[in-house]
Amino acid sequence: VIRELAIVGVGLLGGSVAKAARAAGLARHIVGIGRDRSRLEPALRDGALDRATTDLSEGVRDAELVVLAAPVLANERLLREVWPVVAADAIVTDVGSTKVGIVSVAETLARSRSIDFVGSHPMAGSDRAGYGVARADLFQGASVIVTPAGGTDDRALKRVTAFWEAVGARVTALAPDVHDRVVAAVSHLPHLVAFALVDAVKRFEPTAVGFAARGFKDTTRVAAAEPAVWRDILLANRAALAQSVDAFREALASLETLIAAGDADQLEAALVGIKQEREAIR
Amino acid sequence: VIRELAIVGVGLLGGSVAKAARAAGLARHIVGIGRDRSRLEPALRDGALDRATTDLSEGVRDAELVVLAAPVLANERLLREVWPVVAADAIVTDVGSTKVGIVSVAETLARSRSIDFVGSHPMAGSDRAGYGVARADLFQGASVIVTPAGGTDDRALKRVTAFWEAVGARVTALAPDVHDRVVAAVSHLPHLVAFALVDAVKRFEPTAVGFAARGFKDTTRVAAAEPAVWRDILLANRAALAQSVDAFREALASLETLIAAGDADQLEAALVGIKQEREAIR
Repeated sequence: VIRELAIVGVGLLGGSVAKAARAAGLARHIVGIGRDRSRLEPALRDGALDRATTDLSEGVRDAELVVLAAPVLANERLLREVWPVVAADAIVTDVGSTKVGIVSVAETLARSRSIDFVGSHPMAGSDRAGYGVARADLFQGASVIVTPAGGTDDRALKRVTAFWEAVGARVTALAPDVHDRVVAAVSHLPHLVAFALVDAVKRFEPTAVGFAARGFKDTTRVAAAEPAVWRDILLANRAALAQSVDAFREALASLETLIAAGDADQLEAALVGIKQEREAIR
Repeated sequence: VIRELAIVGVGLLGGSVAKAARAAGLARHIVGIGRDRSRLEPALRDGALDRATTDLSEGVRDAELVVLAAPVLANERLLREVWPVVAADAIVTDVGSTKVGIVSVAETLARSRSIDFVGSHPMAGSDRAGYGVARADLFQGASVIVTPAGGTDDRALKRVTAFWEAVGARVTALAPDVHDRVVAAVSHLPHLVAFALVDAVKRFEPTAVGFAARGFKDTTRVAAAEPAVWRDILLANRAALAQSVDAFREALASLETLIAAGDADQLEAALVGIKQEREAIR
């Protein structure tokens, strides 16, 4: 059992960490830290938090585990503030969707003070945001990627892994750069493409949205994702994302070439291959 | 009540037309025409069809309404075969997803023989194909676009409209070229993008599919659509599709520019606008 768990940012993910840890009895004391006191009240009232504060230093000072749950670029800033004020034996993790950036910040900070940081990315979420949609079972059956790097302490990695497993997640370890490529491929690129698709319809034929059926709605569902969260993710993972966009552009151009050439056989063969790839994902 | 309804191609859409017409008592006699006799048997056995034949001329000869329900390019070929053999007062329609092509074939054919053709596009479907997934209620609440052109007889347009309304659809009339732009925007472009997205992941980071979560699955669900159907649609609507792809490429490039420039404020503003557009679609 964790003596004190501090969660910085009590929205969908941070709030779900609090609720899940509470439900599983993983922490004796849970502290929520946020910029706006009134936004922390609901989690205090329903018992997910024992204490709430807007003072970051004071909030994390006695924590055994600190979870950073703000948008990814904010997490990097918060890590710099948290690092000098946590206890020497504290473990810090985060729930951000990109990992090369924050792991490199941690490596730099570790040169002046040795604190255990382990990057985490729970691949669970919602297109809605805020504590109101947080759930104790958000991580049940979800995939969590942890991203040990050269300097990561093995015991800290095991404790963070055990924490996610205790709230029901399947945990996989990937190097930070592999993680960022993986999420660029299956999450950030699809979001970027969905954003562009919604914008394209407006540019090309605005009246068409009145005829949008299930196909369009499914394909663009993620385009309603939280702008402040996705602004940070797209910026933080821009290197891997740009490479994935190049691959996407090549794939699109290859289909366009077959269409323009009227090559029915090759086009059908390409669509058969894609259908098989897609159906292999369950 | 239609004396005899002939349906050419008894798959998901053609089969659903038969079942829906049967359920609503719209036709005294329903004839199914297909290339493969054994594939017509299930619809005969369950009573959706009164008669089945592989002989197109014989099948449509006595029909008051002929519905072409093969893939779109096949419908254009079928229309040429049907035209000279149907009764002089027959009305021919189709259920294809593109309209400029088949309407122009009908206009050419009408110069040698005056037959009433009205293009229809029921925006209902499934990512599965075949009579096995056909449903009597497929068109209930669905949107059907009819595409009158210069030469379309007003009475024929009213009868085809009434037919779709009788099976539960909301019917809108659009000019064929406007229809093709609209479906390029909300259906064909999203499909093409989903196809490219699945292919891009394979090119960029094949291991990533193991981490695909709901966002990726939703965005690429339509990539499992029937290859033979989509080969025809992409080829038949290539002109409007190419224009919609250009708009998509511009939208994507515009987001990429903001990301590459690290312009957090403008990027967030763009995502806020896109979120609003998407949320306006229900």
